[in-house]
Amino acid sequence: EEVSKLLELKAKLNEDESLAAGPQKFTLKTPKGTRDFSPEQMALRNTVLDKIISVFKKHGAETIDTPIFELKEVLTGKYGEDSKLIYDLKDQGGEILSLRYDLTVPFARYLAMNKITNIKRYHIAKVYRRDNPSIARGRYREFYQCDFDIAGAYDPMIPDTECVKIVYEILKVLGMDQFTIKLNHRLLLDGLFEACGVPKDKFRSICSAVDKLDKSPWSEVKKEMVEEKGLEESVADLIGEYVQLNGQEDLVEKLLKDERLLKSKLAVEGLEAIKLILHYCAFYNISDKISFDLSLARGLDYYTGIIYEAVLAGDAGGDSEFSVGSIAGGGRYDNLVSMFDSKHKQVPCVGVSIGIERIFAVLEAKYAAANKKIRTTEVQVYVASAQKNLVEERMKLCNHLWDEGFKVEHSYKKNPKLLVQLQHCEEYGIPLAVILGESEIQRGVVKLREVKSRNEVEVPRTQLADEIRKMLQKSCMNGTL
Amino acid sequence: EEVSKLLELKAKLNEDESLAAGPQKFTLKTPKGTRDFSPEQMALRNTVLDKIISVFKKHGAETIDTPIFELKEVLTGKYGEDSKLIYDLKDQGGEILSLRYDLTVPFARYLAMNKITNIKRYHIAKVYRRDNPSIARGRYREFYQCDFDIAGAYDPMIPDTECVKIVYEILKVLGMDQFTIKLNHRLLLDGLFEACGVPKDKFRSICSAVDKLDKSPWSEVKKEMVEEKGLEESVADLIGEYVQLNGQEDLVEKLLKDERLLKSKLAVEGLEAIKLILHYCAFYNISDKISFDLSLARGLDYYTGIIYEAVLAGDAGGDSEFSVGSIAGGGRYDNLVSMFDSKHKQVPCVGVSIGIERIFAVLEAKYAAANKKIRTTEVQVYVASAQKNLVEERMKLCNHLWDEGFKVEHSYKKNPKLLVQLQHCEEYGIPLAVILGESEIQRGVVKLREVKSRNEVEVPRTQLADEIRKMLQKSCMNGTL
Repeated sequence: EEVSKLLELKAKLNEDESLAAGPQKFTLKTPKGTRDFSPEQMALRNTVLDKIISVFKKHGAETIDTPIFELKEVLTGKYGEDSKLIYDLKDQGGEILSLRYDLTVPFARYLAMNKITNIKRYHIAKVYRRDNPSIARGRYREFYQCDFDIAGAYDPMIPDTECVKIVYEILKVLGMDQFTIKLNHRLLLDGLFEACGVPKDKFRSICSAVDKLDKSPWSEVKKEMVEEKGLEESVADLIGEYVQLNGQEDLVEKLLKDERLLKSKLAVEGLEAIKLILHYCAFYNISDKISFDLSLARGLDYYTGIIYEAVLAGDAGGDSEFSVGSIAGGGRYDNLVSMFDSKHKQVPCVGVSIGIERIFAVLEAKYAAANKKIRTTEVQVYVASAQKNLVEERMKLCNHLWDEGFKVEHSYKKNPKLLVQLQHCEEYGIPLAVILGESEIQRGVVKLREVKSRNEVEVPRTQLADEIRKMLQKSCMNGTL
Repeated sequence: EEVSKLLELKAKLNEDESLAAGPQKFTLKTPKGTRDFSPEQMALRNTVLDKIISVFKKHGAETIDTPIFELKEVLTGKYGEDSKLIYDLKDQGGEILSLRYDLTVPFARYLAMNKITNIKRYHIAKVYRRDNPSIARGRYREFYQCDFDIAGAYDPMIPDTECVKIVYEILKVLGMDQFTIKLNHRLLLDGLFEACGVPKDKFRSICSAVDKLDKSPWSEVKKEMVEEKGLEESVADLIGEYVQLNGQEDLVEKLLKDERLLKSKLAVEGLEAIKLILHYCAFYNISDKISFDLSLARGLDYYTGIIYEAVLAGDAGGDSEFSVGSIAGGGRYDNLVSMFDSKHKQVPCVGVSIGIERIFAVLEAKYAAANKKIRTTEVQVYVASAQKNLVEERMKLCNHLWDEGFKVEHSYKKNPKLLVQLQHCEEYGIPLAVILGESEIQRGVVKLREVKSRNEVEVPRTQLADEIRKMLQKSCMNGTL
């Protein structure tokens, strides 16, 4: 009986609460497929982005920004079936707008609109897709893209090679050393289909079947070609002989002697391009990670030349939860800008998109596995007080140290406990604490404490800044920071 | 007659063109009230943001990020009349979403959702308002906010003073030395209205009239109070005696002896708070720019304590095209987070928003006036060739210099003209060029050219990296970079 009374009471309390909460009574959450980023996540992201940006800058890239939404018609007809994933804004009177789906179409619109014919730019920003989010696999509806593109009419494979070089450098600088960069060429694929006897109207659908070879065995892909897409089995078998090949220059040479391929101008043109990029890769010292791979197709329709994709080694592939899949990819798209130009002026482009969300996911998992804590602030010195009524002294000292260029904080409580202050230092990984007490103030000194070792030394106020500089340098070199 | 034929021909040509353009025939533009940022604009923005972020970091701030859109109900009831300016997303099945209107409400939602009671964070991101854009005055529908906030139950005015200190430091570090930071307190305003005999239900509307004193003379504000808002003229006159006051500690002391104000508990509480923050400002060495100003009201309803605003001196004020108005502002809002908590748990907050769009506009105008060009890349060395067929040699040398850590680029043309290559260096402000020729290659040397002076020296390849380092350091110190 007592239990039921208590339950009743509890129910009543809950009721009161929900009344009190009034109109704000709804589940607190971020929209489906989106998330907040905590200070820990942001610290890791910013570290990674800084490294990536430094590579872009090393290659002389500029950066631009475009609005998060575009006139809907700018996006129309660019994404094929995926257009249904575009977020539209409500018609509130005025223009009809959609959230950007990627950074490439806004880039092309920017070039056409401003009549820019030469640019090397990177753009790191959020894009939006009303996809069914698979959070476990790190797929969200709001996510960052990180693109580098070179626009301009240049000579074959010179900018293309630099894009591949940049992928190589970025993965190296992030310590993700085990990777392969697959190369292929759209014209080679088209020529191959042509040479094998695929009807021209089936090129795109057969291409998208080939694209699945990174996740499915050839037998399944063949089944799709024959049963779903109505390709003759003998033609599929022929394709199968080619698209399972991968190698280096020797494979190019072999295929350049292949009677069947030699009949297709497209195939030969594609092979010559592959040959040239492999040649250039040697001068950029990246050949060790490059693989000419005829199974690489890449989904997007707008590619017109070389295509490439970096995959992490040891990645099982397949649709498993643990597969990261491609970590960067891109290619040449020479006709996209002209779609926006009233005179169809061509601005050839080649670019690469770094899969930073996947990179973040891999690195977050690494940190978690190593139980490694990321610092979320850069505070160097914490100004603490050992007694009451010293807030003004703390403020004065903080101000002195800020003036000296240090990153400093102190408690926002008037009379914080010393223990609480020191715990704050340990929690946030602050290397040094200055501790103020009445007697020290009178003698013109402070206690300077190394947080990790808990060693304390007394330092005259006049020498404090120099002493801090010395200790920071020391602990930096010892790697204790 | 010939003319009319030509005109006819021209009309026909135009027609053909528009036919050829097909479905892409629409005005290329960004949505109303939005814009792209060019490499020049981005370079300036990133320089400014880096400086601002360095101040935040100096004070131990972390950073977070939230989605660009929120559940509509999160924003509902937070912005009063301005709610009509919120961008809604189209209902495409699923949740009803809106673009964020500011960063403060998402911050409060984040704190309540994650039950965070202590944080010091900055957040720099885009927000959206379907306002009537006044491009001339630098007002857009998509723009950046730059917020710093301290959440937590601390002692009076200690975090508040640090917010003011941060505004001071940011404006100093940006070289915008001529500014005043006005301080006031919401309780003092309420107490003042109470003491002057304003009916309680008119507090907010009279407050918003006072808010206009930075742009309008008292006579107009009084007119609004009396004629539009139905305040007794004698009451308005009384208010006028107070809200035109500004000063320092002495003004606080004077008002703390004012018989009328002393009758209002709220007024006294507000004055005591102002007294304390002015006291603390002295320890942070920022008193020279602080002004206690009773006309400062600030629009937002959610402020509960101290409020502040930085204005540039020399700014005429008023609604003129040249007025920048407030360049930073904020205050204490102790009740916003509790609106999201089902148990109405309070998380006291104080923060400041830096008006970075206005800062960008001011600095862009400054640069333009000084005819100062901003570098959009950080390239240090350009690898050029003086003869044909040296693309592979250029690639090898670029790769060597990248390995040595330099920022390097070369032409994407196979056989570029030397003049074009050197012009590129001048256009982009690249300090050094390495020039390759057959004879130099055979002798194992290169020409190293200082772009500005056009001086050239011959350097052995083995010493090139060291020589470049020396020259970069030299030109850096001479300020020729």
